[in-house]
Amino acid sequence: MGVSSEVTVKAPMCPSRGVLEHVTSRWGVLVLAALVERSYRFSELRREVGGVSEKMLAQTLQTLERDGFVLRDAKPVIPPRVDYSLTGLGREAADQVWALARWTERRTADVQAARLAYDAARTP
Amino acid sequence: MGVSSEVTVKAPMCPSRGVLEHVTSRWGVLVLAALVERSYRFSELRREVGGVSEKMLAQTLQTLERDGFVLRDAKPVIPPRVDYSLTGLGREAADQVWALARWTERRTADVQAARLAYDAARTP
Repeated sequence: MGVSSEVTVKAPMCPSRGVLEHVTSRWGVLVLAALVERSYRFSELRREVGGVSEKMLAQTLQTLERDGFVLRDAKPVIPPRVDYSLTGLGREAADQVWALARWTERRTADVQAARLAYDAARTP
Repeated sequence: MGVSSEVTVKAPMCPSRGVLEHVTSRWGVLVLAALVERSYRFSELRREVGGVSEKMLAQTLQTLERDGFVLRDAKPVIPPRVDYSLTGLGREAADQVWALARWTERRTADVQAARLAYDAARTP
């Protein structure tokens, strides 16, 4: 393959950059990290991912479904029931995103300390 | 600690969510992934992270510096020279983000295939 067909997120027009943006999107990250633990119904998932609107959650799930990360399973029952879970491909992404979310939680206090030091050094 | 002081990205008001958003921001991801390999001068980094404007790169670097992820080293030389590198904390984040970027590149073809299948199943 020539250099021009290399798959790299460094290139603005490379499709890998769009994929990375879906995986790391504000709600994409939190949805993937939640689905690592188990499958969810829409309303459960909305509670789990605090602060997401119905519209944004539906949009995020559809994007992740189209990308092959999330499986949407509409049960033929009354009332209607839809379960969302990870595909094999989605699990690969979600495991990494989950680890990053857990790391962030562990290190948030360090980041807050760094911000205080940064701001203090710039206060006259 | 009570439940209310738990650090979790699930809570909309938890500071960890803001940290996660910086690490996974559009340009934050690409800047951290680039700095895994070596330190960069501003103009070099701008070339490495294709498509970023000067303003967005400066803003992203400042956010990452304030969070304690990036070290800004202004050399007292003429012409001025500023190097950007990872701190220890930044390396922890960047290693994970780098792995996610590499995974995305490897799996982009699978995502593209999933999209084609999704769209085909919905074409009348």
